[in-house]
Amino acid sequence: MDERMNAHKIAQKLLMQCEELAKISEWPDSVLRQYLTPEHKAANKLVAQWMCEAGLVCWHDEVGNIWGRLISEQPDAEHLVLGSHLDTVPNAGKYDGILGVLMAIEAAKALRKQGVKLPFHLDIVGFADEEGTRFGTTLIGSQAVAGHFNRDWLNLTDAEGTTLLEAMQHFELNPGLARKAALKPDALLGYWEVHIEQGPVLASQNCSVGIVTSIAGARRARISVQGKAGHAGTTPMHLRNDAAVAAAELTLAIESLAQKTQAGEVATVGSIQVPQGAANVIAGQCDMLLDVRAGADANRDELISAIEQSAQQIAEARGVSIRFDWYHKASAEPCSSEFQSIFEDAAQQLDIQTPHLPSGAGHDAMAMAAITPIGMLFVRSPNGISHNPEECVYSTDVAAAFSVLHQSLMDFSRRYQGV
Amino acid sequence: MDERMNAHKIAQKLLMQCEELAKISEWPDSVLRQYLTPEHKAANKLVAQWMCEAGLVCWHDEVGNIWGRLISEQPDAEHLVLGSHLDTVPNAGKYDGILGVLMAIEAAKALRKQGVKLPFHLDIVGFADEEGTRFGTTLIGSQAVAGHFNRDWLNLTDAEGTTLLEAMQHFELNPGLARKAALKPDALLGYWEVHIEQGPVLASQNCSVGIVTSIAGARRARISVQGKAGHAGTTPMHLRNDAAVAAAELTLAIESLAQKTQAGEVATVGSIQVPQGAANVIAGQCDMLLDVRAGADANRDELISAIEQSAQQIAEARGVSIRFDWYHKASAEPCSSEFQSIFEDAAQQLDIQTPHLPSGAGHDAMAMAAITPIGMLFVRSPNGISHNPEECVYSTDVAAAFSVLHQSLMDFSRRYQGV
Repeated sequence: MDERMNAHKIAQKLLMQCEELAKISEWPDSVLRQYLTPEHKAANKLVAQWMCEAGLVCWHDEVGNIWGRLISEQPDAEHLVLGSHLDTVPNAGKYDGILGVLMAIEAAKALRKQGVKLPFHLDIVGFADEEGTRFGTTLIGSQAVAGHFNRDWLNLTDAEGTTLLEAMQHFELNPGLARKAALKPDALLGYWEVHIEQGPVLASQNCSVGIVTSIAGARRARISVQGKAGHAGTTPMHLRNDAAVAAAELTLAIESLAQKTQAGEVATVGSIQVPQGAANVIAGQCDMLLDVRAGADANRDELISAIEQSAQQIAEARGVSIRFDWYHKASAEPCSSEFQSIFEDAAQQLDIQTPHLPSGAGHDAMAMAAITPIGMLFVRSPNGISHNPEECVYSTDVAAAFSVLHQSLMDFSRRYQGV
Repeated sequence: MDERMNAHKIAQKLLMQCEELAKISEWPDSVLRQYLTPEHKAANKLVAQWMCEAGLVCWHDEVGNIWGRLISEQPDAEHLVLGSHLDTVPNAGKYDGILGVLMAIEAAKALRKQGVKLPFHLDIVGFADEEGTRFGTTLIGSQAVAGHFNRDWLNLTDAEGTTLLEAMQHFELNPGLARKAALKPDALLGYWEVHIEQGPVLASQNCSVGIVTSIAGARRARISVQGKAGHAGTTPMHLRNDAAVAAAELTLAIESLAQKTQAGEVATVGSIQVPQGAANVIAGQCDMLLDVRAGADANRDELISAIEQSAQQIAEARGVSIRFDWYHKASAEPCSSEFQSIFEDAAQQLDIQTPHLPSGAGHDAMAMAAITPIGMLFVRSPNGISHNPEECVYSTDVAAAFSVLHQSLMDFSRRYQGV
């Protein structure tokens, strides 16, 4: 069969499988699948079945991730890991994470059917908890695999007060063995993840597939602007120290500074609030939440420093004080340039245009980056919407992503063997 | 005694009387004196005593305002009303309203002691409810006098569920007679009110006394900015329709437009809020409260139209919608130019500099304007602070205001007689 035709048939199958998995939900009318629930078990079971049908050897690990291996015939072979996650946020879409797991299985199956002899084990993983919906901590599945399972997490509780420890026992996992889920970095060749973009970049460029350059690092701050409250009627404009207007000026400055950056840095004031604000009182205080992300930590910190400088100028000019409380910091994780070039080459052979773009959202690859080089492919999100039932994908984009992944695996295998 | 020395002694006395009235409070450690409470009764009693000592004829009206008259010897004399209010906000200052009532009594007393024969009755009023603290409706005392007592108000309830009707009965007033508090406009010459500025204008110009040109009209709007929510990490800056940044731009535009006006117009965004705002979500909505005031309605409406035009431009440029819901409108009340010129002449004779300024806050004079020309003098608020225990006045400013008021009464009396 023509390769392209085949990819389209596989895309159709993947979309049907996504529909089928979406039916495994804690909620009747929309998707919710949390860590260590009966739905987690059911989803793992279905995916394991598909893995077996694909000819993979299957197992659960110590924290509930599901694995399938296309075994290499080479003795002492190293491993290349492909995967993503199977858990969801509440009222989720059908593709976030899931598509990447299922596409990896299909890629392994295709290689096996073609009789390709891989010089490494191809391990497919469905991570059990990327979203952190149930216990508030994200990436538990991949962090455990990366050797970062934190025993304190066992005391985390869900909304019903069940601890992670109890939930693991109920899932028939031994919490004392959780750290055994860690992979040995020595035998690892890398981690590849296909994921929907969850943003509008590929859509705006009318491209099916993108190559991720890095997973953005984020810093978040609570900003507090302190001005002077006053009577909205009796205080002339030039005698005000209005905290709300100062916050507004800073918000605009933040947008403008982020727009001027060169590498896709983003800065967002997701919340502005005048506490007890009233129409007839000049705001004495205004609180904001700021999120700054960039593909490289240096770029992010440069933007932050420009924002803080701008805040200082605004504060001085307006006779207010502006305080930043940086409460969250995550480093950027660059994607392997070797993997990026393998993806790029594969796409060129297939005549598929693949823009390079940073990932603004976090992914399991962030955790895996601690132990092995990472590579990520994005599939266009037609409306840029994710974490929502409106999340969707085009079948043609899924076919293109599958083709790039499949070709990349063959190319990487050849490179690995020095062919 | 030297006139100036005398004015200073009177100012000292007025400040002591303000202290004494401040002790009549519902709260032990700060001032609260609400309508139709035992404290209202006690304050009226004390003020009536001071009125009697000043040689005035005293009475309560049908809604609980306290009155004192310096009787003219002329048969069928008209009336000039002087006054302000005796009720307070919670945690109030000692001068807001009160100073104006007591100063009017002292002015009447001084005229009487000097043997000045007025060709009109001089009526001093202590209005009973300007602030609206107890029943949520402001200016009940002066609106009743102006013939605008609304019978529906009798159903208003305070925090304990007591209706205005019940409270009036408990105060030994007959609610059925409330409308009898209305004055006949025909016999009225005008209403003069001395009040602390409650703003920083006179302080910034280092002046003791100001002449009010008008009481500003206000319009208030709820503004709703509707953009598009999005992932703060995955949505590039140029693909956003951020409601918070649009609101910020509008807030800055509002400030800038108000600053460019010529007649002291003010515009205030007292509240900005992103509903359920979070650091990692681009704001899909942002709500604001806007208050716009000007000494003349035409100026206010011109500013409002510029603001709405600016909002439309911002909405178009940013791909968001901005909706104004104008929920409050009060017309500006200009002060009589005749009274302004009388005050001005008096001040010139006394070598007191009196800037003209609009009143951004509402006053009993607003209600009185419905039936008679109004005139207002402002006394400097040293720190611009009111409705707060930090509210204060300088004794020298009180003396200056008293002198201007006293001289104005003599001048007006002479003009009235065509002298």
